[in-house]
Amino acid sequence: MRKFVTERAKQLLSLSRQYQHRPLSASLSRFLSSDPISSSPSSSMASPSDSSTPLTLQTINPKVLKCEYAVRGEIVTLAQKLQEELQAKPGSHPFNEILYCNIGNPQSLGQQPITFFREVLALCDHPSILDKSETQGLFSADSIERAWQILGQIPGRATGAYSHSQGIKGLRDTIAAGIEARDGFPADPNDIFLTDGASPAVHMMMQLLITSEKDGILCPIPQYPLYSASIALHGGSLVPYYLDEATNWGLEVSDLKKQLEDAKSKGITARALVVINPGNPTGQVLAEDNQREIVEFCKQEGIVLLADEVYQENVYVPEKKFHSFKKISRSMGYGEKDLSLVSFQSVSKGYYGECGKRGGYMEVTGFGADIREQIYKVASVNLCSNISGQILASLVMSPPKAGDESFESYLEERDGILSSLARRAKTLEEAFNSLEGVTCNKAEGAMYLFPRVRLPENAIKASEAVKTAPDAFYCRRLLNATGIVFVPGSGFGQVSAY
Amino acid sequence: MRKFVTERAKQLLSLSRQYQHRPLSASLSRFLSSDPISSSPSSSMASPSDSSTPLTLQTINPKVLKCEYAVRGEIVTLAQKLQEELQAKPGSHPFNEILYCNIGNPQSLGQQPITFFREVLALCDHPSILDKSETQGLFSADSIERAWQILGQIPGRATGAYSHSQGIKGLRDTIAAGIEARDGFPADPNDIFLTDGASPAVHMMMQLLITSEKDGILCPIPQYPLYSASIALHGGSLVPYYLDEATNWGLEVSDLKKQLEDAKSKGITARALVVINPGNPTGQVLAEDNQREIVEFCKQEGIVLLADEVYQENVYVPEKKFHSFKKISRSMGYGEKDLSLVSFQSVSKGYYGECGKRGGYMEVTGFGADIREQIYKVASVNLCSNISGQILASLVMSPPKAGDESFESYLEERDGILSSLARRAKTLEEAFNSLEGVTCNKAEGAMYLFPRVRLPENAIKASEAVKTAPDAFYCRRLLNATGIVFVPGSGFGQVSAY
Repeated sequence: MRKFVTERAKQLLSLSRQYQHRPLSASLSRFLSSDPISSSPSSSMASPSDSSTPLTLQTINPKVLKCEYAVRGEIVTLAQKLQEELQAKPGSHPFNEILYCNIGNPQSLGQQPITFFREVLALCDHPSILDKSETQGLFSADSIERAWQILGQIPGRATGAYSHSQGIKGLRDTIAAGIEARDGFPADPNDIFLTDGASPAVHMMMQLLITSEKDGILCPIPQYPLYSASIALHGGSLVPYYLDEATNWGLEVSDLKKQLEDAKSKGITARALVVINPGNPTGQVLAEDNQREIVEFCKQEGIVLLADEVYQENVYVPEKKFHSFKKISRSMGYGEKDLSLVSFQSVSKGYYGECGKRGGYMEVTGFGADIREQIYKVASVNLCSNISGQILASLVMSPPKAGDESFESYLEERDGILSSLARRAKTLEEAFNSLEGVTCNKAEGAMYLFPRVRLPENAIKASEAVKTAPDAFYCRRLLNATGIVFVPGSGFGQVSAY
Repeated sequence: MRKFVTERAKQLLSLSRQYQHRPLSASLSRFLSSDPISSSPSSSMASPSDSSTPLTLQTINPKVLKCEYAVRGEIVTLAQKLQEELQAKPGSHPFNEILYCNIGNPQSLGQQPITFFREVLALCDHPSILDKSETQGLFSADSIERAWQILGQIPGRATGAYSHSQGIKGLRDTIAAGIEARDGFPADPNDIFLTDGASPAVHMMMQLLITSEKDGILCPIPQYPLYSASIALHGGSLVPYYLDEATNWGLEVSDLKKQLEDAKSKGITARALVVINPGNPTGQVLAEDNQREIVEFCKQEGIVLLADEVYQENVYVPEKKFHSFKKISRSMGYGEKDLSLVSFQSVSKGYYGECGKRGGYMEVTGFGADIREQIYKVASVNLCSNISGQILASLVMSPPKAGDESFESYLEERDGILSSLARRAKTLEEAFNSLEGVTCNKAEGAMYLFPRVRLPENAIKASEAVKTAPDAFYCRRLLNATGIVFVPGSGFGQVSAY
């Protein structure tokens, strides 16, 4: 697969040799691998709504219309159409397969789940096999022990019951202990809100923070479009700050200050700062000094720090290390009273890549008890997140330890996945940079590359003629020629370099 | 358990004998059973936010403040406190256990999951045991076969991958076939959107329908507070229509029309009608004639019909049968062009009661292709619902069939649960009605009783003295005296009878 993928990348990049002069970014997700899922909207009813239908584009909530989500947008819909055509008529395109690089979805590409995690999940799903003799032959001893332990933390051992709206207390204890072990600072299980992946957690915070378009959220550009989509759905204003491609997507606090002031002059109050570390879609890992500056900035300006830390296990360079913002702020001597901080974590990323399980949590610190009650209330309206996802979130924060039966095989699986991701990142970065007209920053972490491709004037003109952004035009041509699904850089908010 | 519960009910109701003269409703959820989950907000930080905190009650989104969710509200928080006190100091209250009747959560009360469903889930979680010989001894043959079949429907057999944002196509095929078998009318898998339970599906529709407080949603009173909470969060107006307690919670279309006109006169346009059938929290099952009138009303007024049909398996009286609104509208000759209809289903209810799995779907019919694209886009921002929940949603719509190895035991489990629910409904209804000052309608379906309790003038005065609604005051007294957690009728929007 890796060899194939690299050849595809070269094929893709050779196209760019025809183009010159204009830079443009496209996200090369997941180090160019294949994603067989279909991702287009259904189309059982071909006709648009007319005025007799209750809900039309004229009457629908305009915030919904404004929302865009490029990683499952137009290019992906086209890819799905091509895939159907290939199935119906093999050989109808100059490729036999669609390579979905639009989103980080490792298991759809053949990445295997961590065995221990799945053993525990299966046992918790069907606890009545726990004391059967055959089970000993099928499951590791520590997975059986862990399943018993988890079931003991669930009232009535009922994995089919709604839990506390923040998640099962015993699992939150485990997660808090995992955070403590990671950071070296205390973590409180009452600060943990378990969620169906990180996305609902981000939506929940946006819902609390945004009242109108006068409420701004500082977001990195390029950004993961969940943020722009969620801000649009809640009717707020995205206040951009720009990561500097020339310094490997450097984050300058001076730029943060400038953008904050600029927003203020337009009547927009920044309520929060989103930082994605390691970066999505840009792959950089923040330096500790830089993190301290960011903490200081949020404290001084009195804004909430929303720390997207879902790639905390995905760091590929020896000179960088992940530090949570909570650890950084505590090591600066700042406590509950000093900084309102939300850290997002997900089971979808890391080496686990369990996207389909929809597990994750947010750790909420530095808010008053009255606001905490409001967060709890909003969480309670959806009752609770799914219990398998809750269990998995506890497992990724507390994997097998030395001496456990699964420990060696767990290590082997984990390190195999992480080193493969690191190797593929390096291979593709080098492939990009060896090509004329293409540059690409180093991926220090996360799962993405964000190359810059220079387009010739004629390509720009051709895109303008069909009223399409040049990078979207390029991605469409690329897809039609090779079957590779990119997301255009403009989908991540990236601005033209001119 | 049942005997215990009935005794508790009598104990509770005997309290009401002291009270007379004023009627009041309180929902007696789940036929009075115990729910050991803890449901209070966390409280790691005691102090409220002060003006130096970025987010305060003055700056938080006021829609969040406005939102209320009684089934996990104040009474439940008090119950949690009492539970902690009982644990810390046994004997400190006149009861030894808290009986959580605030929400339908069967497995927290000892209801066992359907074995076949859990077998399939466990096998899909850990497919590598599927071809091991020990597995034959632990799992039924048809669960193994079903797991293979489901895995075959998932690209790459990857239960850990994000799926299509509407859910895995093969599972939607199964669900559509189940709907067809239930209704006798065609169902299209492209109309199915799999969701993490019914709640996110309801939120999604509210997000599309509501732009401002000028957009109204017709809701039954009493109603399940998910609707009022979701309307508040999205900034719309709840337009109440009143179920008539005197005619077993009858729904009069003349009242619908009256309320619609009344809203119009206030500048509110009704965009949709919510109907909960079987009723939550009222337990009535709509008559077919009544359903036809409702369909006709929505068609004539050009409003969306939001049909909460999550209790479709929970009908306890032989004279009533569940009919989906889609079946009713199709049998009236109405097709896609005639009625915009959304039907909600959940794995949390029925005989399965798999609340913790967070599975469900909505079937969306009668919307234009342009609106469908918008629904898809909003679904895609959260990527997909959890795969175990998706699998379970397909299983409840396609349980074991005659000839399958699990069929007999499945039937036994299913019918045991349903007849126990029916028996408990009857027992408690009779217990209520045998008491002075208490009346209670028949529970024809769903999982709740909504009795009317008359309070004496002095109790009303006492509640006014502490600025509490009389029914909330009653529920608090009841909890403090017996450990039983009711939700006050006002939490469901029920109005005073005076």
